[in-house]
Amino acid sequence: MDMAGYCVGIDLGGTNLKAGLLDRDAKVLSKFSVPTGIEKGTEHVVSTIAGAVERAVREAGVSRGDVVGVGIGSPGPMSHRRGLVINPGNLPCMKNVPLRDEITKRTGFRATLENDANAAAWGEYWAGAGKGVRDMVMFTLGTGVGGGVVIDGNLIRGYYENGAELGHIIVQPGGRQCSCRQLGCVEAYSSASNLAARLVEEIRGGRSSSLKARVDRGEEVRAEHVAQAAKAGDELAMQVWDDACRYLAIATVVMQHVTNPQRVVLAGGLINAGDFLLKPIREHFRRLTWVLLDDFPEIMFATLGDDAGVIGAAGCAWRAHETGDW
Amino acid sequence: MDMAGYCVGIDLGGTNLKAGLLDRDAKVLSKFSVPTGIEKGTEHVVSTIAGAVERAVREAGVSRGDVVGVGIGSPGPMSHRRGLVINPGNLPCMKNVPLRDEITKRTGFRATLENDANAAAWGEYWAGAGKGVRDMVMFTLGTGVGGGVVIDGNLIRGYYENGAELGHIIVQPGGRQCSCRQLGCVEAYSSASNLAARLVEEIRGGRSSSLKARVDRGEEVRAEHVAQAAKAGDELAMQVWDDACRYLAIATVVMQHVTNPQRVVLAGGLINAGDFLLKPIREHFRRLTWVLLDDFPEIMFATLGDDAGVIGAAGCAWRAHETGDW
Repeated sequence: MDMAGYCVGIDLGGTNLKAGLLDRDAKVLSKFSVPTGIEKGTEHVVSTIAGAVERAVREAGVSRGDVVGVGIGSPGPMSHRRGLVINPGNLPCMKNVPLRDEITKRTGFRATLENDANAAAWGEYWAGAGKGVRDMVMFTLGTGVGGGVVIDGNLIRGYYENGAELGHIIVQPGGRQCSCRQLGCVEAYSSASNLAARLVEEIRGGRSSSLKARVDRGEEVRAEHVAQAAKAGDELAMQVWDDACRYLAIATVVMQHVTNPQRVVLAGGLINAGDFLLKPIREHFRRLTWVLLDDFPEIMFATLGDDAGVIGAAGCAWRAHETGDW
Repeated sequence: MDMAGYCVGIDLGGTNLKAGLLDRDAKVLSKFSVPTGIEKGTEHVVSTIAGAVERAVREAGVSRGDVVGVGIGSPGPMSHRRGLVINPGNLPCMKNVPLRDEITKRTGFRATLENDANAAAWGEYWAGAGKGVRDMVMFTLGTGVGGGVVIDGNLIRGYYENGAELGHIIVQPGGRQCSCRQLGCVEAYSSASNLAARLVEEIRGGRSSSLKARVDRGEEVRAEHVAQAAKAGDELAMQVWDDACRYLAIATVVMQHVTNPQRVVLAGGLINAGDFLLKPIREHFRRLTWVLLDDFPEIMFATLGDDAGVIGAAGCAWRAHETGDW
């Protein structure tokens, strides 16, 4: 197999898209961010992506002939197999856009399309917290709870290409309603947005808390406020925070038994809380898991931060180049 | 690829082992059952298996030279990769037995070892309710709740080779204790044994039921008694039965989001209850799943019955022959 060459990674977001060019060792040779410009319509977005690919190559100063391909991480629903962006909530102009083939047509490079959460998980697997591991699960704790699952070196996609939606593992039957309308999804308790929203609901429902004044003033409550209040001993904040950790531990036990990973990686804004998040998750996990076998995954934080998407998208192109599965 | 040839399947149980010889189209040419004889020790069990392989070939009347390999389904914990039976609870004499290589040594045939629940799932995938499907999940509802997961034509094994233990998906945090010591496993509510045990517990705890007389007489209560009483309108039996269906539906929603299968197959003794089981599971599933996308798996019953283990074990040998992964 040829060892030279470069791949471009594109992380397509509702506000900005990030682009970069990486070599086979995941070394980043160029990287930048530009507005996606969704308000200007489909053609604008597609040509912005194509332009970003060209710019990533140009800024890295490598020869076009050494570029092996382009990986694009897109919000779902999308189809890797058909190379199609279907109908992402935050990209209203991108309905049924055959993005993979469009980018190839416009840039001349082979392209592969991947779900953005999968691409980020692949980034951590290829070059971050999952490096050297064979089987990995990632939970991304942001507005929602995203997921990615690698088994034996392959991303799980599923029949409907909608697998690894780990945020919608039900951890509390009949529990808090999720944006997906299920009751008791782990996302409804453990995403940064939802744990903050839950605290606000409880305060509005009459529970006392040191954050009540903030809520009464109509100021936004974010996960870091909950963490701060919990550290200071606020009972409601402590409960909400601990529930977020406990439900995430339950979802981890579920994944232990389903895909039996070597490592579970936690990513997303919430991990800025550090040990205040990691320690209780690990403790709940050990308390909640079985005693039959010690097939416990390591639970650790992602290491690539916001670059996981771009790095992973480029890594997906490498993978496609190696396997032929574009 | 050569299209002739036969494989032997062995389904190793604590009481009996089943053996059979199948062709590439899963046609069974010989099939029988013999006592495993665990009380006579390791050497006896291993030579019984080797003898059953030879007998399956002989009774089918095929030439030894046309036999491609032997598949053995073994209770866990075991290791496919190492060909090792580790420490199954119902095979106390089979501790760390390198069964794959022993069978090859004694019979001259290549052999592959697979978890028995995985082998049964592979049987349904190859020749039963999952035939023609690409991604499948199987729940086996017997004494416990077993599992098997096929993704893109491959069984999930996991890093510790302990994946697809779907009975230990937590569906009720803090719920009924499972034999694995976790609280609220789907197995604790939805296995044939556990749903009967749960009804007995409730009666002993003071709940009234038409089955109380049976419990008071010290007679065994089985899942079919619960079904019968539920059909006759017994309130406790109806609740226990409905909970079993509902928790299984929750586990199905979880698998929908994790591996996103095309089909979920239900197997094991409990499916003898027919529509009285299947209909409420499907109804609960539709009520409990999300509304974002209609990526709903078909939920249906297994079709191979007790032969799934033997057929699947032979199918694993075919698969090993094709992939080279023995």
